[in-house]
Amino acid sequence: MRKGFTLWFTGLSGAGKSTLSHYVAKELRHRGLNVEILDGDEVRTNLSKGLGFSKEDRDTNIKRIGYVCKLLSRNGVIAISAAISPYREIRDYNREQIGRFIEVYVQCSIEELTRRDVKGLYKKAIAGELKNFTGVSDPYEAPLKPEITIDSEHQSEQESLRTILSYLEREGWIPSAKAHATKS
Amino acid sequence: MRKGFTLWFTGLSGAGKSTLSHYVAKELRHRGLNVEILDGDEVRTNLSKGLGFSKEDRDTNIKRIGYVCKLLSRNGVIAISAAISPYREIRDYNREQIGRFIEVYVQCSIEELTRRDVKGLYKKAIAGELKNFTGVSDPYEAPLKPEITIDSEHQSEQESLRTILSYLEREGWIPSAKAHATKS
Repeated sequence: MRKGFTLWFTGLSGAGKSTLSHYVAKELRHRGLNVEILDGDEVRTNLSKGLGFSKEDRDTNIKRIGYVCKLLSRNGVIAISAAISPYREIRDYNREQIGRFIEVYVQCSIEELTRRDVKGLYKKAIAGELKNFTGVSDPYEAPLKPEITIDSEHQSEQESLRTILSYLEREGWIPSAKAHATKS
Repeated sequence: MRKGFTLWFTGLSGAGKSTLSHYVAKELRHRGLNVEILDGDEVRTNLSKGLGFSKEDRDTNIKRIGYVCKLLSRNGVIAISAAISPYREIRDYNREQIGRFIEVYVQCSIEELTRRDVKGLYKKAIAGELKNFTGVSDPYEAPLKPEITIDSEHQSEQESLRTILSYLEREGWIPSAKAHATKS
């Protein structure tokens, strides 16, 4: 049986974690692999109802996602987390717990995110109307040695997708697209 | 790829859910299947820290286990829950959410459990020293139509194991032991 692993996206709100994780999942499923996305919002509904956005509650939420990723990964599934996961210590805790862990840092400047501001949240946060908003009124600790860094400010989504797939193929986490094409 | 499913044990504390689920898991793994046990205590630590034993908190805990079973089941894993799960409505909610769901009712009378009382909990509960103790100071709603019923009062653990494996083979959830023996 093929071994699972965890693809752990981290980055500010609006940087593109969720969109990109769905592109990756679609491509991997197309290649016949089992993939499960743990999205921040869905997880908060199903695993973390009642938790808020204090450091302690965020940490608990991210550890729970990590626990589920661990269960999936060790059973042959590719688990993808797309939660902000602002604190380095907790991401590193999950890395250690899970073992087969690939961190994808989706990088985008606050300036660019404020320009995009699809949900209008950055303006609110900068105006002081949103407490615990990561990157503005709450810290974000960028990874020091992520396996993959995506520059979502300058890369297109398709380029970012290719960056991730190339890494996974090169490092032997997934069969190469060619091998797949030959088999099917 | 082989499809996963959820094997949902329910029954009073001490009835033998956890022991039996470990026997089943061992045998299924021996047959080359992916199995994950969600045990009450481990789940409380990793997914439900802070929840107590009120009806609402129990329901939340059981729904969380159900959510994780769903994620595992739909990715080809056999998920086994061994939590008491006293309320019918919540078990039925999980059944509906998960779809591929087999309920295993591990039946044992309160009299027998009080005789065994390995942890001394029944005596305490009967003496009124334990609140929210299922079957004594808290309700237990037995399943109305479980797929499998185990009489752990009169059956040995090996008999119970065989009952479960026979059902799974007969209903096509797992390959038969013969088929397995031929292949290996």
